[in-house]
Amino acid sequence: MSDPIKRVVLAYSGGLDTSVILKWLQQTYNCEVVTFTADLGQGEELEPARAKAELMGVRPEHIYIDDLREEFVRDFVFPMMRANALYEGLYLLGTSIARPLISKRLIEIAAEVGADAVAHGATGKGNDQVRFELSAYALNPDIKVIAPWREWDLTSRTALIAFAEAHQIPVPKDKRGESPFSTDANLLHTSSEGKVLEDPWDEVPDYVYSRTVNPEDAPDAPEFITIDFERGDGIALNGEAMSPATLLAALNELGRKHGIGRLDLVENRFVGMKSRGMYETPGGTIYALAHRGIEQITLDRGAAHLKDELMPRYAELIYNGFWFAPEREMLQAAIDHSQEKVAGTVRLKLYKGGAYVVGRKSPNTLYSEKVVTFEDDAGAYDQRDAAGFIKLNALRLRLLGRRGEG
Amino acid sequence: MSDPIKRVVLAYSGGLDTSVILKWLQQTYNCEVVTFTADLGQGEELEPARAKAELMGVRPEHIYIDDLREEFVRDFVFPMMRANALYEGLYLLGTSIARPLISKRLIEIAAEVGADAVAHGATGKGNDQVRFELSAYALNPDIKVIAPWREWDLTSRTALIAFAEAHQIPVPKDKRGESPFSTDANLLHTSSEGKVLEDPWDEVPDYVYSRTVNPEDAPDAPEFITIDFERGDGIALNGEAMSPATLLAALNELGRKHGIGRLDLVENRFVGMKSRGMYETPGGTIYALAHRGIEQITLDRGAAHLKDELMPRYAELIYNGFWFAPEREMLQAAIDHSQEKVAGTVRLKLYKGGAYVVGRKSPNTLYSEKVVTFEDDAGAYDQRDAAGFIKLNALRLRLLGRRGEG
Amino acid sequence: MSDPIKRVVLAYSGGLDTSVILKWLQQTYNCEVVTFTADLGQGEELEPARAKAELMGVRPEHIYIDDLREEFVRDFVFPMMRANALYEGLYLLGTSIARPLISKRLIEIAAEVGADAVAHGATGKGNDQVRFELSAYALNPDIKVIAPWREWDLTSRTALIAFAEAHQIPVPKDKRGESPFSTDANLLHTSSEGKVLEDPWDEVPDYVYSRTVNPEDAPDAPEFITIDFERGDGIALNGEAMSPATLLAALNELGRKHGIGRLDLVENRFVGMKSRGMYETPGGTIYALAHRGIEQITLDRGAAHLKDELMPRYAELIYNGFWFAPEREMLQAAIDHSQEKVAGTVRLKLYKGGAYVVGRKSPNTLYSEKVVTFEDDAGAYDQRDAAGFIKLNALRLRLLGRRGEG
Amino acid sequence: MSDPIKRVVLAYSGGLDTSVILKWLQQTYNCEVVTFTADLGQGEELEPARAKAELMGVRPEHIYIDDLREEFVRDFVFPMMRANALYEGLYLLGTSIARPLISKRLIEIAAEVGADAVAHGATGKGNDQVRFELSAYALNPDIKVIAPWREWDLTSRTALIAFAEAHQIPVPKDKRGESPFSTDANLLHTSSEGKVLEDPWDEVPDYVYSRTVNPEDAPDAPEFITIDFERGDGIALNGEAMSPATLLAALNELGRKHGIGRLDLVENRFVGMKSRGMYETPGGTIYALAHRGIEQITLDRGAAHLKDELMPRYAELIYNGFWFAPEREMLQAAIDHSQEKVAGTVRLKLYKGGAYVVGRKSPNTLYSEKVVTFEDDAGAYDQRDAAGFIKLNALRLRLLGRRGEG
Repeated sequence: MSDPIKRVVLAYSGGLDTSVILKWLQQTYNCEVVTFTADLGQGEELEPARAKAELMGVRPEHIYIDDLREEFVRDFVFPMMRANALYEGLYLLGTSIARPLISKRLIEIAAEVGADAVAHGATGKGNDQVRFELSAYALNPDIKVIAPWREWDLTSRTALIAFAEAHQIPVPKDKRGESPFSTDANLLHTSSEGKVLEDPWDEVPDYVYSRTVNPEDAPDAPEFITIDFERGDGIALNGEAMSPATLLAALNELGRKHGIGRLDLVENRFVGMKSRGMYETPGGTIYALAHRGIEQITLDRGAAHLKDELMPRYAELIYNGFWFAPEREMLQAAIDHSQEKVAGTVRLKLYKGGAYVVGRKSPNTLYSEKVVTFEDDAGAYDQRDAAGFIKLNALRLRLLGRRGEG
Repeated sequence: MSDPIKRVVLAYSGGLDTSVILKWLQQTYNCEVVTFTADLGQGEELEPARAKAELMGVRPEHIYIDDLREEFVRDFVFPMMRANALYEGLYLLGTSIARPLISKRLIEIAAEVGADAVAHGATGKGNDQVRFELSAYALNPDIKVIAPWREWDLTSRTALIAFAEAHQIPVPKDKRGESPFSTDANLLHTSSEGKVLEDPWDEVPDYVYSRTVNPEDAPDAPEFITIDFERGDGIALNGEAMSPATLLAALNELGRKHGIGRLDLVENRFVGMKSRGMYETPGGTIYALAHRGIEQITLDRGAAHLKDELMPRYAELIYNGFWFAPEREMLQAAIDHSQEKVAGTVRLKLYKGGAYVVGRKSPNTLYSEKVVTFEDDAGAYDQRDAAGFIKLNALRLRLLGRRGEG
Repeated sequence: MSDPIKRVVLAYSGGLDTSVILKWLQQTYNCEVVTFTADLGQGEELEPARAKAELMGVRPEHIYIDDLREEFVRDFVFPMMRANALYEGLYLLGTSIARPLISKRLIEIAAEVGADAVAHGATGKGNDQVRFELSAYALNPDIKVIAPWREWDLTSRTALIAFAEAHQIPVPKDKRGESPFSTDANLLHTSSEGKVLEDPWDEVPDYVYSRTVNPEDAPDAPEFITIDFERGDGIALNGEAMSPATLLAALNELGRKHGIGRLDLVENRFVGMKSRGMYETPGGTIYALAHRGIEQITLDRGAAHLKDELMPRYAELIYNGFWFAPEREMLQAAIDHSQEKVAGTVRLKLYKGGAYVVGRKSPNTLYSEKVVTFEDDAGAYDQRDAAGFIKLNALRLRLLGRRGEG
Repeated sequence: MSDPIKRVVLAYSGGLDTSVILKWLQQTYNCEVVTFTADLGQGEELEPARAKAELMGVRPEHIYIDDLREEFVRDFVFPMMRANALYEGLYLLGTSIARPLISKRLIEIAAEVGADAVAHGATGKGNDQVRFELSAYALNPDIKVIAPWREWDLTSRTALIAFAEAHQIPVPKDKRGESPFSTDANLLHTSSEGKVLEDPWDEVPDYVYSRTVNPEDAPDAPEFITIDFERGDGIALNGEAMSPATLLAALNELGRKHGIGRLDLVENRFVGMKSRGMYETPGGTIYALAHRGIEQITLDRGAAHLKDELMPRYAELIYNGFWFAPEREMLQAAIDHSQEKVAGTVRLKLYKGGAYVVGRKSPNTLYSEKVVTFEDDAGAYDQRDAAGFIKLNALRLRLLGRRGEG
């Protein structure tokens, strides 16, 4: 019914699954495939993806391998961190925040190469398909989206491997059997889910963790660090200026070493089911705490409380894939407005799984020792004002007790 | 202008400050003082308060010493925990939640003894005065409230001690000098503030902590526990049924041992200033995590997200002293409605300052392994539904990209 | 793949469209059809539906015709009115609120007759399909739902009429051509949309209105009425006690006469598009104003403002079809908690399209003339308290102006 | 205790009350008074204020008379209207929105003339004192604020007149007796309260209205108008471009003629009591409806619903006097972000007290006739997508019905 697809840009990791998809797209749609492989800090070599794509007939000029790490942290992770975003009170949204950037590049590349469709390897049960596609449609309402795992009735892992072998797609040894869990990684976090994690009563096995040492194996002495902020964003570690991605990478190393940022979570997916995941967000966990720490002395109460009230909605929007929706942008405008003076230094203690803010200072501080001190304060605060303050705050409550008196 | 006060009920700790107030009330208002001393689990002997009150001429039948621990946890702490309440993202509201109960008893006793006023020892700079008085006025709109520390120009600690000595009020040795910080304690937490804590850049000195060991000094091996819930409230520890206060006390012991629940915070007071406090909430920290854990598998997403959005307001109301306000009760009605099926068991790991949910199960679980699994699921979920779901969620975003086409 | 359907309960109006659906269900699914026709106050005779159903072979004991008017107003309209619900600031949700009740009966009847499916005649572009189906699934997770207008490729009105004629389904004369708009009606409102209404710049033609006179044709003299409330619900008109449905019907007559409750709206559908509709809600418009009127003197500010903040979400939930979702029930619990003392009498003026609250009184009033008066008030309010109230509210704003002073 | 005040800027209307205050300030504080009289469109001649001030010894260069009408509408009324702000569901905030502008000028003038204080004539029971003072403190944390009506024990109107006469302040004849009500007016509205309005059961007497004809006396024929918008603000009436203040003034004339914008309200004051007021907002009522009308076709659903949810808080902030608080600015940033494409033309019908949107069109429209039509739509919308959309929205509700199945 709709026009045939001529050229499609595939989000291509270079791994088995998206290689199978590449071939399947060529066969099923009889179309040209353009591959896009992003370095978001997942810690894998990306050049092998080029060779594989070439092997499957992708034109060299149609193989895109981009280092997006700085853009990822600067334009996605940090803005989100300004909001202190936590999904369902706990999750730092490490997977969710990477998807809109990938879609943005898919759509940009589609425009460059004149593609009429984009494709991704997310399954039909997860949130990622939603995130990829909402972002794609928001950025190009006319784009077509192909989600092979929703279309193709590949009923088992065995069938997938058979398809790969039938088409000369190399199958790594460790992919031959069923994997006990699946992962996604980027500079902000690694997530794991599936199989061995599916019973939420069972503890996550040790071998699932890849980004952090077990707290029991972390150093026996705490380590103290400082992070500097400017306009709500981190700019330096231990006094050394760093770019966003460099800073996050350095915090990841610290977090890894001290076993910080493990989270065992049962969460509610946008598609309607509960799932159990394990997240490792070493640097992000430290960063998020530090950001709250610097806000404590530089953010006005009204601004801080409004942010806290808006946050769950903001986090939900990102989780659900609405990064490029007007309401996320509106909330971002409000949040960013609050961050202008969020600057200064936070000192943290890292120790065996825990990160603790132990000090904060700022040239923009709103904390006034003069006002808060128990001692005489030379008129900075008149205690008698409190009586009137309480009286008028109490008035409506007292009138409730006299209801009907008129 | 207003009628003279004849009888006043004083929130009396038995300590130096409220003893001085007791005397001052007798002198200044020439009125009869009734003392009320509450056991909220602060861990002090209360009987000495009786002797002191008697010494200062309080009639024996006018000396109230009540064990409110069960009421405190059952009717105040647990309902608040059902909301996952955190003030400014971090604070478990340990001081805030105790004040309305004290006011409630003050007002009840005032009715019993025919008092026309209540009095408290909170200062004119803090939140507690507001909490005490808003609660008192809400429960009895005609009550008079005396806040001696707002009325009395006692300009220094020295003057207070002089007054005490002039009136044969015993001054404990450790109260002779300036205390380096002040504390408030109950079964939920101990808070410390003032003096040595006033520079938010300085780390909290070790000697300030009283309820928890330093994480570095906690056991080198993790400990695993389970907490059982029913209708949103904790009912058992490691399978052993416990009353609310007993459960919280037992968790406090575990938290103390493992160094859990320390919080160094700069917060925004209702009276308009920022202050820096240190909180130790050992059992409450564990309990709060466990409650989130059991909600993860028993609470529907719609209910969970609504709770998360309402929570900051709810926490702010408690912090500001509006426990007995209609809007807090409305929020409580909504929250409690959500808790009916929040039942089951949470397993936690406690280790060197950290508490981690590692498993949860429930007879009321909403988690469906059948639906979530990557494998074939016999029709529990049709992946093709996701396409329509995404398409309609994307429709408005696509129309934005076609704005003006009509 | 799924089991064949044996018996289906159809929401049957007796009109052409659902008669065609009835036949189509019998043919396509080869199943037994049970019909359910609800009197929600739409003002049509329902008995003809019985004869038609019988003609098409529905068993007499399988023809359900229920008068749901009281249940509709008491359990759906009034609870919603307690919330002052307005979708997108203006729409009183007249269609939205009827759907869950129809689904509730469909599911009840399905249980009674042992049906495995329910069916409705809503189209694939509107909100009603969502409302019907979400309610049905919420009440019976195993029910199957058939939406013929989504399944059946009936590409035009002509095809539908041809089908009807081919199957001896009578086609009323006025249904032979294209209708210039379509309507839905119940005791709360009549909605119209489609065709002549589709250009939002064109004024709604006079002939579309059916429930109200044109304001220009309304009486030249205003009419004054009173409505009495108890626990947030209307109980009497002009002093005469009335059941919920009787009261709403009587207000509808008043609204019709005075041309009250017309609304020309472009709204956002849950399925992602904008649509233009015309609503007539004569009695509901008057009732909603009166409810706000009585709340003004009986609801505390904290409760009132919380209600106002929760309302848009509550209205959205009803609009989107989530009446039977936990979060709607949570909000209802909060709202209902606030209504206990909402009682008294509101006086309104009705005149040429407008309804105006002109007076309200209540045995539970919180309005205190003594407190508010400009005159001396014998100590009900001490103006000097305002100074302290303002000073402490201003403190954080002043500290902002001194940022960085520490 | 604090330094003596040397020079104070008084918000001076030229009327009896502020003339008495002027004299009282000179006497009581022995300071120099600078007068500031603002034209906010209240419709009074302001030059007489100059003569009166001079008579009381104010230096000519210390008499400020400013026409602030354009600034008022452009920088205060229109930004507020972008939010569709309604306090307690009904009130267009006509008084509230004028106060911050007056304070802003007071503080600016204080800086120009080197004054150390500002003064206003608001009473100790109302909201205006709060609005004046919070704004003043926010703009200059060191300013002193004098509120004579809170300080001065003028116990009656008679005493005030006696003071005036003793100091050669002219007392207009109509001010000799008690006024039956008091008013405040500006270009947006006139408010009336007090005395004859104090019983909320009594209808507002006809003679209280001053800005609108009685709807019964309005023209018998409706009038149709158009308003053009650009970036969320009105720019033209009936196709004629107008400045903000000119547009609002012209709408006021239309509203006056057709009896539009009367509101009888019992509201909750920030200082804790309920009060009854009568508001006339003729042009603002029309404008507010028109703004909603243009948003209906130009604002995305996500943006629109977020705005609706934020609005009650935003309105409360303005009502309470927090215009210059960070959280109001944050909300404004979010709201303004949404208005970029809010442009086009709204057509309204004005008739006997009512204003009705009857048409809207926009070059930026998001309304798509192609998508919404009942007819075939060439693939703009696939009805089958709705099935998946509903299924996944229903999933969590169905799982609720299967709770415990695991």
